[in-house]
Amino acid sequence: MDQHHKRPRAVILLSGGLDSTTVLALATAEGRECYCLSFRYGQKQQIEVERARRVAERFQARQHLVLNLDLGLIGGSALTADIPVPKDRTVETSNEIPVTYVPARNTVMLAHALAWAEVIDASEIYIGVNAVDYSGYPDCRPEFIEAFTTLANLATKAGSTGATRFAIRAPLMHMSKADIIRTGLRLKVDYGQTHSCYDPEAAAACGRCDACRLRLQGFAEVGVADPAPYRNR
Amino acid sequence: MDQHHKRPRAVILLSGGLDSTTVLALATAEGRECYCLSFRYGQKQQIEVERARRVAERFQARQHLVLNLDLGLIGGSALTADIPVPKDRTVETSNEIPVTYVPARNTVMLAHALAWAEVIDASEIYIGVNAVDYSGYPDCRPEFIEAFTTLANLATKAGSTGATRFAIRAPLMHMSKADIIRTGLRLKVDYGQTHSCYDPEAAAACGRCDACRLRLQGFAEVGVADPAPYRNR
Repeated sequence: MDQHHKRPRAVILLSGGLDSTTVLALATAEGRECYCLSFRYGQKQQIEVERARRVAERFQARQHLVLNLDLGLIGGSALTADIPVPKDRTVETSNEIPVTYVPARNTVMLAHALAWAEVIDASEIYIGVNAVDYSGYPDCRPEFIEAFTTLANLATKAGSTGATRFAIRAPLMHMSKADIIRTGLRLKVDYGQTHSCYDPEAAAACGRCDACRLRLQGFAEVGVADPAPYRNR
Repeated sequence: MDQHHKRPRAVILLSGGLDSTTVLALATAEGRECYCLSFRYGQKQQIEVERARRVAERFQARQHLVLNLDLGLIGGSALTADIPVPKDRTVETSNEIPVTYVPARNTVMLAHALAWAEVIDASEIYIGVNAVDYSGYPDCRPEFIEAFTTLANLATKAGSTGATRFAIRAPLMHMSKADIIRTGLRLKVDYGQTHSCYDPEAAAACGRCDACRLRLQGFAEVGVADPAPYRNR
């Protein structure tokens, strides 16, 4: 364990969206020294990394590391390949895993987070996955997080020798989008800095993809206006 | 399952070294249509990728994909950071995990292999890990492979919906280096094409790092000369 550090160190997977930004606020409030990790993964939406940078600054993260991933060469998703992002779906009633699913993305990202955690001597990795308002992605469920925790402690020198007991923190797992927003507002998150939209077209969100619809529904439930810019509203 | 393909498709993690080349030969002999995956991961030893390319060609792999990984920015290993590669260690008697361990490397590589397998509709991933003559790496053990298999089937759309049952094949797991070499020779592997050395200095192997020493010991046991070039011999 990293009890020899003044504050426990944690790696935070930070996309610059609503969920991961709230996770960073929570980890900071819980006294963690935050090492934020973002990816350029061939996603059409490059604005995410810029938003992540601002958010990491705002919460005075100890470090913000941006890694390149070659998921674009693998393809298979509307977020990395030339497949249109669906609009105006009825998210709540859909049981299908959508085309915005990126094959094995959370596994790839957590694997990098684990590598970094081992190098900086952090025992915790925070990730903003959610099993309530999620869009049907398999790698956002509690079983997945549990399986990755088991793997992490077998896969590493620190974990397998018992020097560190790695834990994956998913504090949003059982929260509704409205609960997440309420939590973030209490922790002084500026949601105007965050970007959730799947659409690659512009800096302003589309308001119509799954991510925008879930977000707007959450703000409506809280009874607060979403401070982020939307282009169709 | 991928029974609708003429030959079952498999992703082969291919470094161009002795072990992964033997794995490719085995998968080919087992009738798999092979999709070889290599990485440029900031390793000082860039020659690996070139050797992997030649080996993939020789075994008429269906495709050879080379991805870039940013593990160099994470550091923590003699293979990616500015830490000297140890020479002339007594490998057999060492219980320590060596500085050539790359944090979470096999997790990161298997995660990418899983993403690609899902996109191309392959259900198998072959990896050349070995628990006998290995250098003490935690991510080369059977428990690690089992944990990753569990994860793979929870982490993906194909696995979680039951469309595919992912399997990680580690055919070298319980073989000695000599057994691996015998198997490869039987399957017409040209070990002169393979490169195992950790040392970044030259195209010819050093003969003194852990990888070279294990390899040379294996050839000695088989009673065959290693056809690869060594600079100190």
